[in-house]
Amino acid sequence: MNNIYVLINDLLVPADKATLSISDLAVQRGYGIFDFFKTVAGEPVFLEDHLDRFYYSAAHMRLPVRQSRKQLKDLLYSLIRKNQMPDSGVRMTLTGGYSPDGFNIAEPNLIVTQQGFQINADLMTRGISLITYPYKRQFSEAKTLDYLKAIWLQPLIKEQNADDVLYHRDGILAECPRANFFMVTADERILTPSRNILKGISRMHVLKVSEKLFPTEETEITIEDLKLAKEAFITSTTKNILPVVQIDGNIIGDGKPGVLTKVLAQEYKRIIYG
Amino acid sequence: MNNIYVLINDLLVPADKATLSISDLAVQRGYGIFDFFKTVAGEPVFLEDHLDRFYYSAAHMRLPVRQSRKQLKDLLYSLIRKNQMPDSGVRMTLTGGYSPDGFNIAEPNLIVTQQGFQINADLMTRGISLITYPYKRQFSEAKTLDYLKAIWLQPLIKEQNADDVLYHRDGILAECPRANFFMVTADERILTPSRNILKGISRMHVLKVSEKLFPTEETEITIEDLKLAKEAFITSTTKNILPVVQIDGNIIGDGKPGVLTKVLAQEYKRIIYG
Repeated sequence: MNNIYVLINDLLVPADKATLSISDLAVQRGYGIFDFFKTVAGEPVFLEDHLDRFYYSAAHMRLPVRQSRKQLKDLLYSLIRKNQMPDSGVRMTLTGGYSPDGFNIAEPNLIVTQQGFQINADLMTRGISLITYPYKRQFSEAKTLDYLKAIWLQPLIKEQNADDVLYHRDGILAECPRANFFMVTADERILTPSRNILKGISRMHVLKVSEKLFPTEETEITIEDLKLAKEAFITSTTKNILPVVQIDGNIIGDGKPGVLTKVLAQEYKRIIYG
Repeated sequence: MNNIYVLINDLLVPADKATLSISDLAVQRGYGIFDFFKTVAGEPVFLEDHLDRFYYSAAHMRLPVRQSRKQLKDLLYSLIRKNQMPDSGVRMTLTGGYSPDGFNIAEPNLIVTQQGFQINADLMTRGISLITYPYKRQFSEAKTLDYLKAIWLQPLIKEQNADDVLYHRDGILAECPRANFFMVTADERILTPSRNILKGISRMHVLKVSEKLFPTEETEITIEDLKLAKEAFITSTTKNILPVVQIDGNIIGDGKPGVLTKVLAQEYKRIIYG
């Protein structure tokens, strides 16, 4: 954490001194939202999309953002300039604020952190394994702080030698806790769940790439449909496109990252890294 | 906040200096549990029950508590002695800790706060109004930090001129966000929901009082059943027994705190205040 700075409201502070009063509603009641984007060679990727979603999540959760979009961008750039960390992840958190009664929303606190960032090349090559689990996030469309279930499930995921969990509701697939899910059908259509998900920024841009290359649909996918999947992958800011080769112990395709997945991953990387 | 102290792990610190690193999983992911008891004339009420539930919630959410029960009690009493606040609420919060990866549970932080405490006599006299809302807490049996829905619903509650919300699932009643629900039937039985609830400490002790005086059941209650309710009330540490006189705009009984409710409230107060 040497020399890394953090933004708390309008102030840059060293990360090891970045604190929040325990009266904040995030600490008291888990109340807040966030967003997360990456920088490549010092430049934010899809910043406008992440800002759109940040303000959307805030409004949805009734959190007033004191900073105008212009002010927030200036603050983000001041942090990025200060930290001089070209390839990074930047997280903007907005909490419920210092609530006198510990229950009603106060003036939100803005916390922006930046951290080093690397994609696990090994996972990219071998692909990951998922388990499915019945769960629906309570505010699907907003990026809230609520990761109770995801964190609670970690030991179960490890027990089953899996890497992540794929939520479903009554057998209808939704999303991973921090990524969106895609599958490739036997006849080479690209499908991704349409409902009960956080609409990922990576998901949106992968869809754009995919639509140019393959028949692509946002639709309902069931656990049953997975049996016919030729390929699968997940998308997120930290993972770009990450192949999935096993779900609930069942091998997807030939158990290796799929051909279409690789094509999409290549094209998507070109957009992000030029 | 003058002169009020807070316990952070093993240290007493002034409340206005009580902070948590922003890397704590409570701030990052809303991950943590808590419990809340009151002191009357300087003495904790139902402390052993609250400690039972605190350790239960922690274990359920996979949070190791560093302090033994004896150590925790010593710490609680040191705070109570320090603050000299005879009638108070004491909150013990256990967070996910300073997580290096911002996702996996680390060594939990213990935060104990104490605050002045008064029961709203006006509400006691006139009774409160509830609205029902479909929702099930994701870890019903543990007292987690997750109050997203409850806080988010506040404007809706106010819009409807209500005081609180009563959750139900598919029409089966559960609980209020911070209280348990009871109803009195036309034939003077005392009922309270048995499932999908946090088992309140006040609920438990009110049940004991009630069982001695009236036919009393933990059972399934539906929204439909409310139409036949003669009386209703909620129970919690901060409210003891608080009469409910209206639900979803429908008057309960004659719209005033009920006779049996008052009997129970009197008996319950005797136990707590002697």
